[in-house]
Amino acid sequence: MRSPTAVASPSLDLLCVNTIRTLAIDAVQKANSGHPGMPMGAAAMAYTLWTRHLRFNPRNPDWVDRDRFVLSAGHGSMLLYALLFLTGYDLTLDDLKQFRQWGSKTPGHPERGHTSGVEVTTGPLGQGVGNAVGMAMAERILSARFNNADGSIVDHRTYVIASDGDMMEGVASEASSLAGHLQLGRLVVLYDDNLVSLDGPTSLSFTNEDVQKRYDAYGWHTQFVADGNDIDALDRAIVAAKADPRPSLIRVRTHIGYGAPHKQDTSAAHGEPLGADEARAAKLSYGWDPDAQFLVPDDALAHFRSAIERGAELESKWRAAFDAYQSKRPALAKQFLDEQAAKLAPGWADTLPVFKPEDGAVATRDASQKAINALAITVPALIGGAADLATSNKTSVKDCGDFEPTDYSGRNLRFGVREHAMGAALTGMAVHGGLRPYGGTFLIFSDYMRPTIRLAALQGANPIYVWTHDSIGLGEDGPTHQSIEQVASLRAIPNMTMMRPADANEAVICWRIAVEHKGGPVGMAFTRQKLPVYDAASVAGTARGGYTLAREGGGDLRVILIGTGSEVHVCMAARDLLQKDGIPTRVVSLPCWSIFDAQESAYRDDVLPPAVHARVAVEALSVFGWERYVGDRGAVIGMHRFGASAPAETLFKEFGFTPERVAERAKSLL
Amino acid sequence: MRSPTAVASPSLDLLCVNTIRTLAIDAVQKANSGHPGMPMGAAAMAYTLWTRHLRFNPRNPDWVDRDRFVLSAGHGSMLLYALLFLTGYDLTLDDLKQFRQWGSKTPGHPERGHTSGVEVTTGPLGQGVGNAVGMAMAERILSARFNNADGSIVDHRTYVIASDGDMMEGVASEASSLAGHLQLGRLVVLYDDNLVSLDGPTSLSFTNEDVQKRYDAYGWHTQFVADGNDIDALDRAIVAAKADPRPSLIRVRTHIGYGAPHKQDTSAAHGEPLGADEARAAKLSYGWDPDAQFLVPDDALAHFRSAIERGAELESKWRAAFDAYQSKRPALAKQFLDEQAAKLAPGWADTLPVFKPEDGAVATRDASQKAINALAITVPALIGGAADLATSNKTSVKDCGDFEPTDYSGRNLRFGVREHAMGAALTGMAVHGGLRPYGGTFLIFSDYMRPTIRLAALQGANPIYVWTHDSIGLGEDGPTHQSIEQVASLRAIPNMTMMRPADANEAVICWRIAVEHKGGPVGMAFTRQKLPVYDAASVAGTARGGYTLAREGGGDLRVILIGTGSEVHVCMAARDLLQKDGIPTRVVSLPCWSIFDAQESAYRDDVLPPAVHARVAVEALSVFGWERYVGDRGAVIGMHRFGASAPAETLFKEFGFTPERVAERAKSLL
Repeated sequence: MRSPTAVASPSLDLLCVNTIRTLAIDAVQKANSGHPGMPMGAAAMAYTLWTRHLRFNPRNPDWVDRDRFVLSAGHGSMLLYALLFLTGYDLTLDDLKQFRQWGSKTPGHPERGHTSGVEVTTGPLGQGVGNAVGMAMAERILSARFNNADGSIVDHRTYVIASDGDMMEGVASEASSLAGHLQLGRLVVLYDDNLVSLDGPTSLSFTNEDVQKRYDAYGWHTQFVADGNDIDALDRAIVAAKADPRPSLIRVRTHIGYGAPHKQDTSAAHGEPLGADEARAAKLSYGWDPDAQFLVPDDALAHFRSAIERGAELESKWRAAFDAYQSKRPALAKQFLDEQAAKLAPGWADTLPVFKPEDGAVATRDASQKAINALAITVPALIGGAADLATSNKTSVKDCGDFEPTDYSGRNLRFGVREHAMGAALTGMAVHGGLRPYGGTFLIFSDYMRPTIRLAALQGANPIYVWTHDSIGLGEDGPTHQSIEQVASLRAIPNMTMMRPADANEAVICWRIAVEHKGGPVGMAFTRQKLPVYDAASVAGTARGGYTLAREGGGDLRVILIGTGSEVHVCMAARDLLQKDGIPTRVVSLPCWSIFDAQESAYRDDVLPPAVHARVAVEALSVFGWERYVGDRGAVIGMHRFGASAPAETLFKEFGFTPERVAERAKSLL
Repeated sequence: MRSPTAVASPSLDLLCVNTIRTLAIDAVQKANSGHPGMPMGAAAMAYTLWTRHLRFNPRNPDWVDRDRFVLSAGHGSMLLYALLFLTGYDLTLDDLKQFRQWGSKTPGHPERGHTSGVEVTTGPLGQGVGNAVGMAMAERILSARFNNADGSIVDHRTYVIASDGDMMEGVASEASSLAGHLQLGRLVVLYDDNLVSLDGPTSLSFTNEDVQKRYDAYGWHTQFVADGNDIDALDRAIVAAKADPRPSLIRVRTHIGYGAPHKQDTSAAHGEPLGADEARAAKLSYGWDPDAQFLVPDDALAHFRSAIERGAELESKWRAAFDAYQSKRPALAKQFLDEQAAKLAPGWADTLPVFKPEDGAVATRDASQKAINALAITVPALIGGAADLATSNKTSVKDCGDFEPTDYSGRNLRFGVREHAMGAALTGMAVHGGLRPYGGTFLIFSDYMRPTIRLAALQGANPIYVWTHDSIGLGEDGPTHQSIEQVASLRAIPNMTMMRPADANEAVICWRIAVEHKGGPVGMAFTRQKLPVYDAASVAGTARGGYTLAREGGGDLRVILIGTGSEVHVCMAARDLLQKDGIPTRVVSLPCWSIFDAQESAYRDDVLPPAVHARVAVEALSVFGWERYVGDRGAVIGMHRFGASAPAETLFKEFGFTPERVAERAKSLL
């Protein structure tokens, strides 16, 4: 396949680079808000990458074998928007003029799903590096799975432009260490080392660190380009990076606000418009018409737009290769296409386990493991692992090996003790396409993943989080490891589906929901401890987020007990006590608030009849937010403090999660 | 001052090391839960540190000039408990036998405030390294402030034992980079490199990384001890670390589960008891009585307990030096003692700014800046900075310089783009004592800090978080940077005081509350945008968490509008509309839920009369949790989705935070 190179004359190169710069200057100026300095400094490296190396088809941003580009320094969004417009994506000059305005395609930071060609939503620093590691993992996973003697249908790279700030963020460190371990040779990070961050020179807080040496220590290939405007040097570095089997860091010395006579190399060029005078002066320094606004020279545009033809050719060659592959490997090709389209095979859920009450109590983490292992066969796109807790989180697929540099076909991902990078990588894998990624850790460590969970929710990416040891039920490890406020905090994230199943059969249904869910992340909280199992038929309502697990007996409903997870069986036992006392009591299992809230009101009112006010919610977690379901006249039995270190049964008793207390509290409401 | 060295014979050394090991084995075995392998592998380095280097007084764990010891690998808690018992802290052999039991002093992970001698709560990996960096910063800050020709009353070190897992966590990377920048030469990290983590050998996910080289890249002094049981080598390394002006990493090759014939060097020794047979076998390998339980040989105990005399002598020498210093520098000495006791000077709050409505609108971040600058004079212990957003967060103290390696007397801390490390360091500074630390970033990035905020709350440490740009009011930066669920999530953390002031004068009161608050972290959410100012007298109720800002007029109260932060003025304008329509309407400002909830019910009922059900809460954040205040018949005007990129006024209008909509919604409830 021909290299996707468009080499121009030095003067045309410069014209193109300055077109990017001035578009960024003008858009920020017009919005009176934004970050002009980064695009001005990084324009040359982005130009070199996009015109000489990046393989993409602007007219089909979803071409599956395209190279991925991640602007981890998302505040430099105008750099990306300028490139998308110039190379012919579905973005107009008018869109650039609407930078940072209500309803525009050009928000302050790049948003996937909002702007065509944006691979992943970035802005919060460090995340893009983590996402890119996930994309590069996805490429290796899929290439190991699908490439063979009949064709290499997965054959692309992941490129990142990252800033000083990205390099300081822990999530980028974790992800880079993981990439080094995994030897993700198709990952190339261009480090825009402009020595300036928002507060001023990086010397304020970031001297004494040799970033290149740090990446050497991670096992990366590293290079230095001393002049960030030297297109040939940048080109050579990218060529060398591609040739090296290790992940590559190219440190590029750039100048923030390049060309702005008074603001270059200062933080004044970072987070605010240059100002009209300085913008003029910068344009003059480029040999630009200082009065021109949003000027796109024809030659520059023509050169950039050659990407359209080049992209069409790249994709069409790939399609020809794919067609040849398909004719020889129809089944694999179909699987590939189905997985890219996130299509599930008929009967995919048929082999999910069903648990019987009479077989005894089961920890929901164990039920989850059984579900994962069933799904691993019927949903090959499902792939995941844990942050060094696979044995506890029960996330492993049996007999399928580990994804390791020696064998990228392994099915189990080993993220190490790097929860945040795991989260970011899962998002990267999810937005890459072709995979349904999941990752596990203790629920408490969802806190470490929070920034990346939120970004997944914001961009409608759908990783699956397997969070075990989900309450004080974790026991002896104590309050540092016992979730209290985590579930409430996760429920509070828009577009996040958070589930806490009550037994093994609910857990299986949650997995079914998770695999089918589109457009947002799904989290599941599983127990460490064993729980009684309910008849599968009786928990079918799990699919609606909440349902009546046990109806009231012997008269009109007087008390509703609402529980989630391990406390549902406490509610069931409390119901027995109340029924014995002649109080008709219902138990509602509410594993997923957001799914329940999305049901029609008739259903919700049927489960929680509005006329019944004696409601007790029971959850061995923070009480925060439960008023929504128990109302003014209800009660919540939950945690108002952190947990403690002791065996789980002791904790449930000491903290009052007992049938007796629940029953007593319910009676007090009558 | 004499070196606090207790050098024993090699055989006594070994006896002591094996005493630590066997106590850990027995306690974990008895609890049937815990991590025996780490203490078995790291016993020698801990022993060497604690008997030959660490300066402490077991009979006064609060001696202010003690060295700090942080077990970042908190799962190895039995290592620390064994040392605390053996060296004579307030911990008995019976306490060790109660390891991980309800109410015991020996919980699963070390908890500050719970167990005498535990400097900081650890367990979630990486945090201890970050805390230790904060402690080492505190030492440098206080030494620069108080040491002079008349004495060096602050002269101690911070030691850490960290695990492979700690080294993989991003927060430790960030903190170590910061420590390198700050050249914290009094920080020594012993890296327990046992090549095993919970899931198995670190080769699963942590090869290709040369940790020592990475720390070289951070600007640290690094060493390697090839035999983690070689006490003399460990001793020499610690001596060299202390002598070097850079922070030091000593990588120590150890063997998890050392001496256990079948489990050494495997993850089977990590997170579960050895089992009776393996425990016996391990003891045999030490030359120990295999049947003895919790055996503490007299010679070993006597040697360990020499720490009591040594500690008394160390402290008494320090006291003598302090007395001499005090006689020459009585004012400084008094300040030192007051600050160590967290005592505020009389009148400390008198110079806090007061804003007048007629002077125009003020962003609460600007009010915060004025408060900080006033407090900087009256509360010298107050010290802080931001994670590369000082100019936006308005956290800087004017004319007081930066805390930099060239001048540790600077008042402004520059954390770099390292929010998580900032959080962990703030906690470390807070628990160190003598300082009242604060740190700023955008509210959205509280997500990056979450694990460390929670740990601060759990251990009752009281850093102050200055979170600005607190809603969609941030404007053009868009949804990646606009807080939605953050405030709800922070309110859900037990023992966390989260405040969102409505105007400049509320903001000042919040600062007063923050500075006075003890026993837990305080977070404040400030606006980027300007807000109307209310008369100082009318917002005095801020101190009670919630209060009536504007009473109803013209009849019996019919509608209550409840707001926080920037939405209070929307409520006030809506009240005008409702009053015009003859509907007596009250506005309640509720800047702090937890403080309000802690008021007596009579006060709460006076502010929110239970009989009035037409309540509308208005907050440009997630609606999550507001049912608590608006009740079954109320309404919440908040965010049900993520924000968008546009100017702030546009967003408030588009998302419906307008007086008209609030008034309309209120009417619909009548």
